[in-house]
Amino acid sequence: MITLQRGDSPGKKNKTFQRIAAFLILSSVSALSVMAVPRREEQPLQETALQMLKKGLAEQGAFTLLKKLTAVGSRLTGSPQAATAVELMQKEMQDLGFDSVRLEPTTVGRWIRGDKEEGRIVSQQFGDIPVPVCALGGSIATPEDGITAGVLEVRSIEELKQAGEKAKGKIIFFNRAMNPAYLDTFQSYGEVARLRFAGAVEAARAGGAAALIRSLTLEIDDLPHTGNMAYEPGLPQVPAVAISTRGADRLSEILRNEPEVKFHFQTSCRSLPPVTSHNVMGEIRGAEKPEEIILIGGHLDSWDLSPGAHDDGSGCSQSVEALRLIKELGLKPRRTIRAVLFMDEENGGTGGRDYARSENRKKEIHRLAMESDRGGFLPLGFGVSGPSSVVERLQKIAPLFEPLGLNWIRPGGGGVDIDPLAASGTVLIGLVPDSQRYFEVHHSALDILEKVNPRELELGAVAMAFLAYIIAQEGI
Amino acid sequence: MITLQRGDSPGKKNKTFQRIAAFLILSSVSALSVMAVPRREEQPLQETALQMLKKGLAEQGAFTLLKKLTAVGSRLTGSPQAATAVELMQKEMQDLGFDSVRLEPTTVGRWIRGDKEEGRIVSQQFGDIPVPVCALGGSIATPEDGITAGVLEVRSIEELKQAGEKAKGKIIFFNRAMNPAYLDTFQSYGEVARLRFAGAVEAARAGGAAALIRSLTLEIDDLPHTGNMAYEPGLPQVPAVAISTRGADRLSEILRNEPEVKFHFQTSCRSLPPVTSHNVMGEIRGAEKPEEIILIGGHLDSWDLSPGAHDDGSGCSQSVEALRLIKELGLKPRRTIRAVLFMDEENGGTGGRDYARSENRKKEIHRLAMESDRGGFLPLGFGVSGPSSVVERLQKIAPLFEPLGLNWIRPGGGGVDIDPLAASGTVLIGLVPDSQRYFEVHHSALDILEKVNPRELELGAVAMAFLAYIIAQEGI
Repeated sequence: MITLQRGDSPGKKNKTFQRIAAFLILSSVSALSVMAVPRREEQPLQETALQMLKKGLAEQGAFTLLKKLTAVGSRLTGSPQAATAVELMQKEMQDLGFDSVRLEPTTVGRWIRGDKEEGRIVSQQFGDIPVPVCALGGSIATPEDGITAGVLEVRSIEELKQAGEKAKGKIIFFNRAMNPAYLDTFQSYGEVARLRFAGAVEAARAGGAAALIRSLTLEIDDLPHTGNMAYEPGLPQVPAVAISTRGADRLSEILRNEPEVKFHFQTSCRSLPPVTSHNVMGEIRGAEKPEEIILIGGHLDSWDLSPGAHDDGSGCSQSVEALRLIKELGLKPRRTIRAVLFMDEENGGTGGRDYARSENRKKEIHRLAMESDRGGFLPLGFGVSGPSSVVERLQKIAPLFEPLGLNWIRPGGGGVDIDPLAASGTVLIGLVPDSQRYFEVHHSALDILEKVNPRELELGAVAMAFLAYIIAQEGI
Repeated sequence: MITLQRGDSPGKKNKTFQRIAAFLILSSVSALSVMAVPRREEQPLQETALQMLKKGLAEQGAFTLLKKLTAVGSRLTGSPQAATAVELMQKEMQDLGFDSVRLEPTTVGRWIRGDKEEGRIVSQQFGDIPVPVCALGGSIATPEDGITAGVLEVRSIEELKQAGEKAKGKIIFFNRAMNPAYLDTFQSYGEVARLRFAGAVEAARAGGAAALIRSLTLEIDDLPHTGNMAYEPGLPQVPAVAISTRGADRLSEILRNEPEVKFHFQTSCRSLPPVTSHNVMGEIRGAEKPEEIILIGGHLDSWDLSPGAHDDGSGCSQSVEALRLIKELGLKPRRTIRAVLFMDEENGGTGGRDYARSENRKKEIHRLAMESDRGGFLPLGFGVSGPSSVVERLQKIAPLFEPLGLNWIRPGGGGVDIDPLAASGTVLIGLVPDSQRYFEVHHSALDILEKVNPRELELGAVAMAFLAYIIAQEGI
């Protein structure tokens, strides 16, 4: 029976599936026996998880919505496309029949990139070598004919401080690569993100003419990655750009043999007067305690180099999809589950702050706020910030999420947009997807729909829906 | 301090990382206190895992090797490229300085696709509509001018059996879509794989002229997916092809309004006489019990439509990489850890069977055999087949894998190539990566290097290295 030995022999694989399925059922049941949720809820909760999973994966509503949202284009805070996205998402939530679909205003800063953006290495040995650069969000422009200056390469702010006079008049080239050796690439990002954020300030403090930042990605490629930066009162403002990692490697290589090499770049970005934008929200009103809110959300703005499919089109479409799953399965949450799509996470966080301090919050009690803002990749678990008793209680229900593919609930989590709610005692949760592929696309021209897998995206929506529903039913 | 509220403020993220890191360390330590591994090993094992992770992610040796392997081209059993791949991998293992790098012969069947492969819907209403088809592995060819016949569409073998006389002379169109609603896409695959494997037999039994199988993928696209099939003695042999999912949908749609529509296809595949091929192996000889073997492996052959980057170039490169990590970290396993790259998983499984029954096994005791053959995606856990006491013991050490990103060890697992070792009491383990993206590429022209993420691939190699090393030290 040679054929029964073959790779795809379905009999054998089915047997394995059955064993895995049987194990999953058993392990979930035993998990339930230790959890704090009342026993009468056991069977319905298990069934609810599987209903959400089945409906979500079959319909892939999150991807359908993300396709519409990314078709709007990039959604830089204050841009016309951001306004279009607000209208679109409001209408989508209305069409889905959510309760109290509405906008709340938030006054946001506006920065635009402008038309002109170019960089080149100006080498005695090799002539001019064009390299991809992009202005960092919030940066001032260069003079009209650009900046041309010698280059001081440093790996850290400490190294810059030790350079002393050598920094004067130079373009400060922060060329520290992200460390690939961590499982969690956010750890790699966290180590170097300060160079991008504070590079212009530190360059100015050292007497430099500009800041040139190695793009924050683990890839070696030709795409510059933007992101926010800031100036400090009392210090000169110097222009800041990101350079592609391949460009950074080339410049560094040339610098070794030709320390007097110059770099030239030109940008035309600028800040415009603040404009009124909006957070978008809709909900399923709680049947028993409507004033108690379980918030799920993401941010609607993106950077301008791409439609922000992962960052954070994913979080927005997952939040709306989570509400859709709950509603269309006919579930009646006891507490209100609200989806909020925040404006201006990338450029100032005003949407999140204005949401938290709005007069409208006075009649509401936010029990839980959950954000998805780490890309639409395979969800692995949740990170929780709140009293340790709450974290421990949530950890006890972690096994309920195994049939959805999530294996843990760990302390520490939240999101920029929901963090302002912590002051009023709201428990914060961040959805944690796998991070291996995130920084390839993050803040670059590659953050496009084609980089999102519809199933991975949907699994995040299902996980959010299920956790929101459990807490809406059982409290926290 | 508006800037401190911003999205990428590194201070806040670092704090979260620190909390997560602290939790991971604590949870791993507490896991160790319940595991069966002797206490003196606690610290070294934790450190070993992190050393492997760091070295693997920084060097990404699995992807470097996979790049070389896929450059050989597709590696259909018995093909010249398969022979080239055998030589390449032998040389790579020699260059890495493994012990006892060698080949073991296995006599394999050889099937070739031939030059001609085309399909079309022949409609009265729409004229001829070309659709992508590909012969299934092992199929006979059509007559030289192809087969043109009416179509009977069925969703199952049961439906075909009930069709009775209507099947006579028809092309039997097995058009059952994979169910997208499972978390594990292998479950979806398992439900329908029998239609591909046995479609030609069932078509012949029903008096049909040929079998036309909807490609086994969750995507709707234009790529046909091949795979193995079989004939049964005593029944006529009819040609079998896979049709792309979009082609299948089109044909089904036309059939609804034009039941007399015909389908035409032509193939020129054929089986050639068996040839001698090889399993490739290399090892790190055990310092204390060299005759006890911990086997890690994948299969070196692939289908012919692509270089089999995931299936199973990934498993091969991960197995070699796992050995490299162990060797270059200077670890001295007590038992032998052997990498085996098996030939002919896809077309007969002869490599795995010949390995198990080789005279060379007589002096060896295979304690554990572990296979990676589910794609080079993010590893999630391990599936184990063995005595329940062994499964339980392994489950106790599962928390050791959390810093590597794997969260579970579950009963049920193995691999086609290692399954023949079960008869001699070997514990079998399958590496289980995430399956969301696998069937998009599986057995199609899309199974290419660009579809493999180097970090995800490497994490699988690290997990295999660590588990192999633990068992080499501690026994099973």
